[in-house]
Amino acid sequence: MKKCIGVDLGGTNLRAGVVDPVSGEISHLTSVPTHAAEGHDAVMRRMGELVNNVIHVSGRSPTEFAAIGIGVPGMLDLERGTTLFLPNLPGNWRNVPLAATIQSLTGLPVALLNDVRAITYGEWKFGAGRGAETVAVFAIGTGIGGGLVIHNRLHLGLGGTAGELGHMTIDFNGPRCGCGNHGCVEAFASGPAIAAMGMKAVAQGLTTTIGARVGYDLNQITPEVIAQAAEEGDAIAREIFDQAGMYLGVAIASIIVAVTPKRVIIAGGIARAGDLLLEPIRRTVQQRVTLAPVEQIQIIPAALGDKAGVAGVALWAGEGGGMKEKG
Amino acid sequence: MKKCIGVDLGGTNLRAGVVDPVSGEISHLTSVPTHAAEGHDAVMRRMGELVNNVIHVSGRSPTEFAAIGIGVPGMLDLERGTTLFLPNLPGNWRNVPLAATIQSLTGLPVALLNDVRAITYGEWKFGAGRGAETVAVFAIGTGIGGGLVIHNRLHLGLGGTAGELGHMTIDFNGPRCGCGNHGCVEAFASGPAIAAMGMKAVAQGLTTTIGARVGYDLNQITPEVIAQAAEEGDAIAREIFDQAGMYLGVAIASIIVAVTPKRVIIAGGIARAGDLLLEPIRRTVQQRVTLAPVEQIQIIPAALGDKAGVAGVALWAGEGGGMKEKG
Repeated sequence: MKKCIGVDLGGTNLRAGVVDPVSGEISHLTSVPTHAAEGHDAVMRRMGELVNNVIHVSGRSPTEFAAIGIGVPGMLDLERGTTLFLPNLPGNWRNVPLAATIQSLTGLPVALLNDVRAITYGEWKFGAGRGAETVAVFAIGTGIGGGLVIHNRLHLGLGGTAGELGHMTIDFNGPRCGCGNHGCVEAFASGPAIAAMGMKAVAQGLTTTIGARVGYDLNQITPEVIAQAAEEGDAIAREIFDQAGMYLGVAIASIIVAVTPKRVIIAGGIARAGDLLLEPIRRTVQQRVTLAPVEQIQIIPAALGDKAGVAGVALWAGEGGGMKEKG
Repeated sequence: MKKCIGVDLGGTNLRAGVVDPVSGEISHLTSVPTHAAEGHDAVMRRMGELVNNVIHVSGRSPTEFAAIGIGVPGMLDLERGTTLFLPNLPGNWRNVPLAATIQSLTGLPVALLNDVRAITYGEWKFGAGRGAETVAVFAIGTGIGGGLVIHNRLHLGLGGTAGELGHMTIDFNGPRCGCGNHGCVEAFASGPAIAAMGMKAVAQGLTTTIGARVGYDLNQITPEVIAQAAEEGDAIAREIFDQAGMYLGVAIASIIVAVTPKRVIIAGGIARAGDLLLEPIRRTVQQRVTLAPVEQIQIIPAALGDKAGVAGVALWAGEGGGMKEKG
């Protein structure tokens, strides 16, 4: 099978690399700033140059590549290859013909995929999900993205919108979520939500080292700061991760009773907290799930880090970008 | 394709009929009391007699049937054909070889399936789910059962336990559920939960006709009584169904963002309340789901009533009872 190109359209950086569709190995991975504020035309031009440059330095001719896959942070029209709504990218991305533009700049077929669905596909094919026929991914960062592989197939659903596991409701009276709903798990356990728990603890004057670590500047409190405090024995910081893990565990329990994934994969920046987060997640799932065989379900960290999306979307494109499929 | 036999093992009645696997049409549907208190041996003997009788009155010889499917209210070992845990049936059904016993009593191959997954399969093949590639079913009665068809395939998950949509959490601090978890939608919106809202309104002395309808005997308050009051303009009774619909809508919103079913089917006895329940469900989903194309998703009542399970499980058995599948 021919090599593919995987591209990650991030808010900060554009990344592209050559992907071997059998091993998932990435070579010539290159990153340039997105400069999203310059607008979608400039970003797409830069992406085209990046891809052409990656092809050039790989020493292969463009015809030696099967396709380009682009992981995009938002809602897409997969069939038309256009962006619909990219909440975290400035520069009006409504109805932008991203696939056609990159295709015309590179001469290669292009497929789009939501970035967390790309991570899901990559982790399933090459990473922590390998060999499991049903997999759920929670990618915890600024928001909580998700993805589902069901019976050995990436589940796209209507218009590719399925898998938004961060927007399952865990408390119908809960806080407002960025999506408009109330009580999504994202509103409780995203990076900013975890940081806010730290800010609140400091603002309340609780006995914790979190404040001192940032010179009592609440703006500087991040999940990483809280995780470091927790690892050094700060009881309040540990409680914050216990709480976040409980929230995540409730959502994971819901997806378990619904589809019983063989593996639940925790990805995204916050997953670096490791057992601080995984332990309360597992404890919560143990306590809450009685109707599915939890002892057969693994809740584990992602294996590929920030390479899962590039590898996953490249393979996805090489396989035809789901074009044989409907919905 | 040969005809099949569908059997429903209910707490009150055993039902069996001849099913045409192409049309889903049921003939010779016969019902006898389960007498579950007599224990599983007696129940299985009675079930064998019932099936043999249905075959006899159909005027066909046993060899003219492909298989028998039995819908069972509980957890099963699908591969071994045994019952694991039937919460609503007396008479110790742990590890009972139901499939092998009925097979030896009838001479036909037997497949088991959870009763609500049988309804799901029946509604998808022959009823309200026909033609939709992804379908979610909520069957609302004493509990809330569920089932999922994903990409034109009944999703069984680990050991056939997937699809327990009544046990998705809608409030992690919510009331205790029969399953052991807190805040499952079943704990908020099952038949008994709806009845309890009526009991509470009467006990509180709210201005409602619910009490008078049952001679102020709280034992007599059922969802049907409340539905009748609501239909005759009782504002408190309407509020109860609005509330139940909101709870259900929250769980439905969660399964929509996760798998974006093309159709969500409301089945079970409580579904007879019709628009009383469907309207607040649809309103809640409209308000809460922003990330999936809700305008493409239909939330509709089941079409086959109590025939869906018999038809679905018969077809399932005729197709081999998922025996080619793993998990």
